[in-house]
Amino acid sequence: MNINQTQIEAHNETRVSNHKAIYTFLYAQLASKGTDVDSIIAKLNDFQIAIPSWALGAGGTRFGRFGFGGEPATLEQKIEDIGLLHSINQSSGAISLHIPWDIPTDITGAKNLAKNLNISFDAVNSNTFQDQANQIHSYKFGSLCHTKADVRKQAVDHNLEVIEIGKQLGSKALTVWLADGSSFPGQLNFAKAFKNTLHSLENVYKELPNDWKMLVEYKPYEPNFYSMVIQDWGSSYMLANALGNKAFSLVDLGHHLPNTNIEQIVALLLMQQKLGGFHFNDSKYGDDDLTVGSIKPYQLFLIFIELVSQEPDLAKSSLAWMIDASHNIKDPLEDLLQSVEAIKIAYAQALLVDKLKLEEARTNNDTVGAQEILQAAYRTDVRPLLAESRLQKKGAIRPIEFFREQKIRAQLIKERGSTNRATGL
Amino acid sequence: MNINQTQIEAHNETRVSNHKAIYTFLYAQLASKGTDVDSIIAKLNDFQIAIPSWALGAGGTRFGRFGFGGEPATLEQKIEDIGLLHSINQSSGAISLHIPWDIPTDITGAKNLAKNLNISFDAVNSNTFQDQANQIHSYKFGSLCHTKADVRKQAVDHNLEVIEIGKQLGSKALTVWLADGSSFPGQLNFAKAFKNTLHSLENVYKELPNDWKMLVEYKPYEPNFYSMVIQDWGSSYMLANALGNKAFSLVDLGHHLPNTNIEQIVALLLMQQKLGGFHFNDSKYGDDDLTVGSIKPYQLFLIFIELVSQEPDLAKSSLAWMIDASHNIKDPLEDLLQSVEAIKIAYAQALLVDKLKLEEARTNNDTVGAQEILQAAYRTDVRPLLAESRLQKKGAIRPIEFFREQKIRAQLIKERGSTNRATGL
Amino acid sequence: MNINQTQIEAHNETRVSNHKAIYTFLYAQLASKGTDVDSIIAKLNDFQIAIPSWALGAGGTRFGRFGFGGEPATLEQKIEDIGLLHSINQSSGAISLHIPWDIPTDITGAKNLAKNLNISFDAVNSNTFQDQANQIHSYKFGSLCHTKADVRKQAVDHNLEVIEIGKQLGSKALTVWLADGSSFPGQLNFAKAFKNTLHSLENVYKELPNDWKMLVEYKPYEPNFYSMVIQDWGSSYMLANALGNKAFSLVDLGHHLPNTNIEQIVALLLMQQKLGGFHFNDSKYGDDDLTVGSIKPYQLFLIFIELVSQEPDLAKSSLAWMIDASHNIKDPLEDLLQSVEAIKIAYAQALLVDKLKLEEARTNNDTVGAQEILQAAYRTDVRPLLAESRLQKKGAIRPIEFFREQKIRAQLIKERGSTNRATGL
Amino acid sequence: MNINQTQIEAHNETRVSNHKAIYTFLYAQLASKGTDVDSIIAKLNDFQIAIPSWALGAGGTRFGRFGFGGEPATLEQKIEDIGLLHSINQSSGAISLHIPWDIPTDITGAKNLAKNLNISFDAVNSNTFQDQANQIHSYKFGSLCHTKADVRKQAVDHNLEVIEIGKQLGSKALTVWLADGSSFPGQLNFAKAFKNTLHSLENVYKELPNDWKMLVEYKPYEPNFYSMVIQDWGSSYMLANALGNKAFSLVDLGHHLPNTNIEQIVALLLMQQKLGGFHFNDSKYGDDDLTVGSIKPYQLFLIFIELVSQEPDLAKSSLAWMIDASHNIKDPLEDLLQSVEAIKIAYAQALLVDKLKLEEARTNNDTVGAQEILQAAYRTDVRPLLAESRLQKKGAIRPIEFFREQKIRAQLIKERGSTNRATGL
Repeated sequence: MNINQTQIEAHNETRVSNHKAIYTFLYAQLASKGTDVDSIIAKLNDFQIAIPSWALGAGGTRFGRFGFGGEPATLEQKIEDIGLLHSINQSSGAISLHIPWDIPTDITGAKNLAKNLNISFDAVNSNTFQDQANQIHSYKFGSLCHTKADVRKQAVDHNLEVIEIGKQLGSKALTVWLADGSSFPGQLNFAKAFKNTLHSLENVYKELPNDWKMLVEYKPYEPNFYSMVIQDWGSSYMLANALGNKAFSLVDLGHHLPNTNIEQIVALLLMQQKLGGFHFNDSKYGDDDLTVGSIKPYQLFLIFIELVSQEPDLAKSSLAWMIDASHNIKDPLEDLLQSVEAIKIAYAQALLVDKLKLEEARTNNDTVGAQEILQAAYRTDVRPLLAESRLQKKGAIRPIEFFREQKIRAQLIKERGSTNRATGL
Repeated sequence: MNINQTQIEAHNETRVSNHKAIYTFLYAQLASKGTDVDSIIAKLNDFQIAIPSWALGAGGTRFGRFGFGGEPATLEQKIEDIGLLHSINQSSGAISLHIPWDIPTDITGAKNLAKNLNISFDAVNSNTFQDQANQIHSYKFGSLCHTKADVRKQAVDHNLEVIEIGKQLGSKALTVWLADGSSFPGQLNFAKAFKNTLHSLENVYKELPNDWKMLVEYKPYEPNFYSMVIQDWGSSYMLANALGNKAFSLVDLGHHLPNTNIEQIVALLLMQQKLGGFHFNDSKYGDDDLTVGSIKPYQLFLIFIELVSQEPDLAKSSLAWMIDASHNIKDPLEDLLQSVEAIKIAYAQALLVDKLKLEEARTNNDTVGAQEILQAAYRTDVRPLLAESRLQKKGAIRPIEFFREQKIRAQLIKERGSTNRATGL
Repeated sequence: MNINQTQIEAHNETRVSNHKAIYTFLYAQLASKGTDVDSIIAKLNDFQIAIPSWALGAGGTRFGRFGFGGEPATLEQKIEDIGLLHSINQSSGAISLHIPWDIPTDITGAKNLAKNLNISFDAVNSNTFQDQANQIHSYKFGSLCHTKADVRKQAVDHNLEVIEIGKQLGSKALTVWLADGSSFPGQLNFAKAFKNTLHSLENVYKELPNDWKMLVEYKPYEPNFYSMVIQDWGSSYMLANALGNKAFSLVDLGHHLPNTNIEQIVALLLMQQKLGGFHFNDSKYGDDDLTVGSIKPYQLFLIFIELVSQEPDLAKSSLAWMIDASHNIKDPLEDLLQSVEAIKIAYAQALLVDKLKLEEARTNNDTVGAQEILQAAYRTDVRPLLAESRLQKKGAIRPIEFFREQKIRAQLIKERGSTNRATGL
Repeated sequence: MNINQTQIEAHNETRVSNHKAIYTFLYAQLASKGTDVDSIIAKLNDFQIAIPSWALGAGGTRFGRFGFGGEPATLEQKIEDIGLLHSINQSSGAISLHIPWDIPTDITGAKNLAKNLNISFDAVNSNTFQDQANQIHSYKFGSLCHTKADVRKQAVDHNLEVIEIGKQLGSKALTVWLADGSSFPGQLNFAKAFKNTLHSLENVYKELPNDWKMLVEYKPYEPNFYSMVIQDWGSSYMLANALGNKAFSLVDLGHHLPNTNIEQIVALLLMQQKLGGFHFNDSKYGDDDLTVGSIKPYQLFLIFIELVSQEPDLAKSSLAWMIDASHNIKDPLEDLLQSVEAIKIAYAQALLVDKLKLEEARTNNDTVGAQEILQAAYRTDVRPLLAESRLQKKGAIRPIEFFREQKIRAQLIKERGSTNRATGL
């Protein structure tokens, strides 16, 4: 289904006067403190967050999967879902494909569909953490790190195939996330496994087009694991350095040990020009893949403080922005609307900070002052700025309300049936 | 397949003289320090650890499941597998069933088979954390804690049905583990959810036979969660107290937040006579369900120090001993042999401690002395004691070696085929 | 020094019109959604947070202590400092004394001084975690849990003495926090240590006046420790239950293992009528005693969601509200202004939630809806509500700005000198 | 006081025959499996662990310090204490000085004393985490990372001074551990702080003699902190790489977030030739500085598995071995004897592993087999090997027993008095 512009206009019509009143008031308040609100709105207008193709269906846990009806079963339907989101919030104008869950059968058709919906193709993701039906070698004991050369080669070849698909679609980046590791002490020769991984990645990197990036994720553990080959940003950074200028670390917010100061990692990778981008999500305990901003919104804000400190206009930076969440008990489309909102709130709040004053407080070790500056931005209710940006771009003033008013899920179920099942986890 | 006693004798014959030499030497060393070795051997002889029916197949993760051939597909085959283990190590003489994964179709047959293999039926486990095919209400939003009375009733009824099956088999305990909780702040009214859970459990408890126990597990989190209704031992203890004398807390070693001092929890629950028993496993990060003793063997020893301090002969106590592990990259039978060995090593080491001397050191706050006493026991190589116990009971001196020599897995594959798949996770 | 009402009026005069514009606008916005803003303001007006006497000086770490000048050296100066805070924010009208750091030499004088500054005496805190100069027995190996009866008696007697002092001052609660525990496995008999602690507390409880409370803290670890006798809320709850109706658990936000869901603990203790109150602070890693709201403001909000769910007007509840922070690199008075502000922000935000709508969303398992309700409250900029409350009570519209404008620290240094050192950690 | 060789001989005389019986038996058992026991003994003989000068007195916590009598008050007495340890266990033949706690006033005297006791001077440690009495600038807001150039210069100059002292003593390494960081979000510009630190270290590195090493520690947090400039091995590695061939990362076992896989970090740093050495200790929760091997002995073993895998003879490697513990409730000398014992047990166990068989199991992904190999080594009681090594080197067969028999602490108190207080934390 498509969202008709008239539907959005109707939604906005009933809210625009109240919105304008609030926005105008906020604008004046911020302007009186010297904030260039128009510039913030402009930056919000441009900022796009890619939606992963696997986030549109019900997520799976080891206890099963609760389907919810109207799930997109094909790549086309997934693109359509993202088109829906984008028409509502005007900030989801990209899709990140997961291969082999979403190998396009009709490349031209997929590209045309995306183009019509104003959707671009973001990073393509390879998958060597699952065995596929037609696969010769199993990844039970690893893929790029495997002790056997032919398993490694199979995993390298898969990555090359992913690049090929990405080239046809217009992607410009390959994201590599590995579940390679071990479950028990003794199982793995850590040094050999790391060298095998590097060597395999080198074989992929060699075939990476010049205008592409390779984004290397890290993660401390998987359930039932004792070690991961790329366990932390240090390992990922080491690989990215060894590979070359096109290789970067990718930060997934859920891929850290308890209490990690993620914002500092972001700052250091940025400083070293080795930050490739983000997988956004939130978590209370581990890699929970919960809605962005649902658990630790202040941490998200602090990450954006680091980002805007080194990259004043995120849309113009070369960083990749992507959500990586799992949807087990929420409607994925509603969840994604919440996630994108949370990301943009954090961005808008970070943009409110007067960087010169902050640096001045820091230079003087005025800790109280620095905190006041940050918290003043964070406590500001920036939702009217996001609404204004959506309004300017012909999106809906209140995305979730719009989604519910229009009974979009019910329509999708009607169109697609209630037993449709998305490929993916 | 069955293990023939002749096979075991042949295995032992080639090892017995070396074993006896080592055992005799160790016996003398220990006896010279005043240790009653015979009493330790007698305790080891009696100690039995239940094997869960779901631990005999390949475990599943969200990324799939690596079958390994020869998996037991029926309850009978599972009982046979445990019979195999028991004939090898003489310490696995009980099975713990998971309903509905293992509803017996032929109760009498199952009981006879078990009896012939010298296997008893340990605690039965209910499952309201998964939706079954024929289920009216979904547990997507909880079971015993659910906001809707009819969902709670369905979950209560399932537990009653599990008790019925257990009664027929000769079980004497019901283990309740819940994945009830929430994924997002706001989702759950914590107090209501807890009260609903208590009320539901009361409805189960009412039907619990007088010579049964109810074992209530706790767990801080599941992947993709924000809260669990029974998040820690305090919540479980509160429930067990409210329910009555037949209700106890069950400690799963993997169900704790990072750095929890589990041995102290064990000591307190024992002191309050509310410790019901254990789910043994090991973990590096979360609820990893790894082989017992593979990651933190010293912690396991410290737990046994608490156990023997309050229960001098564990086989004579009323505590329940069960393994709860998941097998993704090891042969489950080999893994279970390793797990049982690790548990008995910890038990034997704990029995080496001179409790009077330890209390004396404690009373005098001789911290160095207390540590020396514990570590002297822990550093002692007690494997010959375990081998002696197995030998006395006509088990194999070296279980893993025996398993491999006899090519048991190959035979199971031959018998059952390589695509058999165990029910369970 | 005292704050002159004229100073505050002058401060407010320059800000009141801008404040009123914002407040009026926010009032209308909230009222239009059905919020009873006046009731929120009234609740904020009444809400008082006790300041601990030890939080007014430079905190100590193992690496030393950075004095900052103008520290209060006597109890009278500490009361004066709290008087300063209270006159600025009108929400710090109580002091919590730590004995023996702050034994009053002139009880009547202290009470008169406090009365004049509108300060009441909150819970008194005993200290058996440090050896004092004149002490017969050392607490090196514990106090209330000690293996020796005479050490336990000394610790009990100290608590009784603290109660006596509290009675003279008009306190109504005794807070017991223990560093009793062990540094090494084996050192402690967990069960005996717990029983000793309970027995000692019983001896204190017997002497507790009928209109008093005993608040029992818990904590998982101290640096250089392996176990704490009261390691978690479960242990504290067990003690409070055994002691009687006047005993309660006290929640210090920093006293939890990584990732603990504190808000759920709060909900359960409230449900069981065993929540005694709070020590507020914030932390990134352990018991960091940082400024409230500086690290995890959303968690603080979620705690207040639980509080207002069961206690609609916190000032009228019997719960104890206290800050427990350490000030190493911030001016303690500025820090305390920030902490009180953060607590009241969380309270005001929680009061914005429409409880009926939230329960409705919960009942329907509308997880997205429940999150929207919570986050709508949390994203609202409630600072104007706090400012209005202060204005109504003749406090300063902007506390930190007022503190700096008036150069209060400089004046305190002038009055007290720059080498004054507060008693305490 | 000095240990007289006759005392040790007398101690050994009563134990040697029992020792020899056990050792001979173990020797035969191990030899029959192909183990070269003599080579292991030779490696144990050569292995020396440096004792830090600050570990010989009572450690301090924020709650104070429990003196124990006979503490060494001067550098000479500290050297004597290490001489005592070394004469007992023959494995503590080095001292690591902390400046300014232990600035030698008589360099020649100190060197002669050390030489007579067969003690060498290991790494010297700078201290810019505390303010010293005579210091111009405070490190309240950092040292090498400070926003002010003159504070950084002061900290650099201190390091240069430490190198000078080290040169005179014969040290060959400088250990840099920084408490530089921040307590609150916003306080620090992460990138600037890191660059300042690097620049400061470069100024120190320039003056480092060619045959010296610079060892850069990392640590995720201090109490009351929000960030550390060198928070993890990745940051330390980045600095070591930028500095040059003489710079290395130093691993302190307590300086990691919960659940970190430290052994993998060790393997990677070794692989990159950037591992400088260790600060050994143990911990349950944070940086607890407890006795080595008292909490997680298996983790220690796994670390030594990595070490011997890449460095077959640790005494011949260029790695630095040092204990870094704090002694609050144990006699430091007894504690250090326990720590050295634990380290050597782990080393001896690791040497038992047949590396070829382990690699074969790994290559075949025989996870069960790899675990069996590791655990067979770990379960072996290697204490007789350590005793034999001590006996060969004229140390005491049972160090702690010897220490207690000889009433060494009582003699030290007699010599030095009971109020002597060691410099240090």
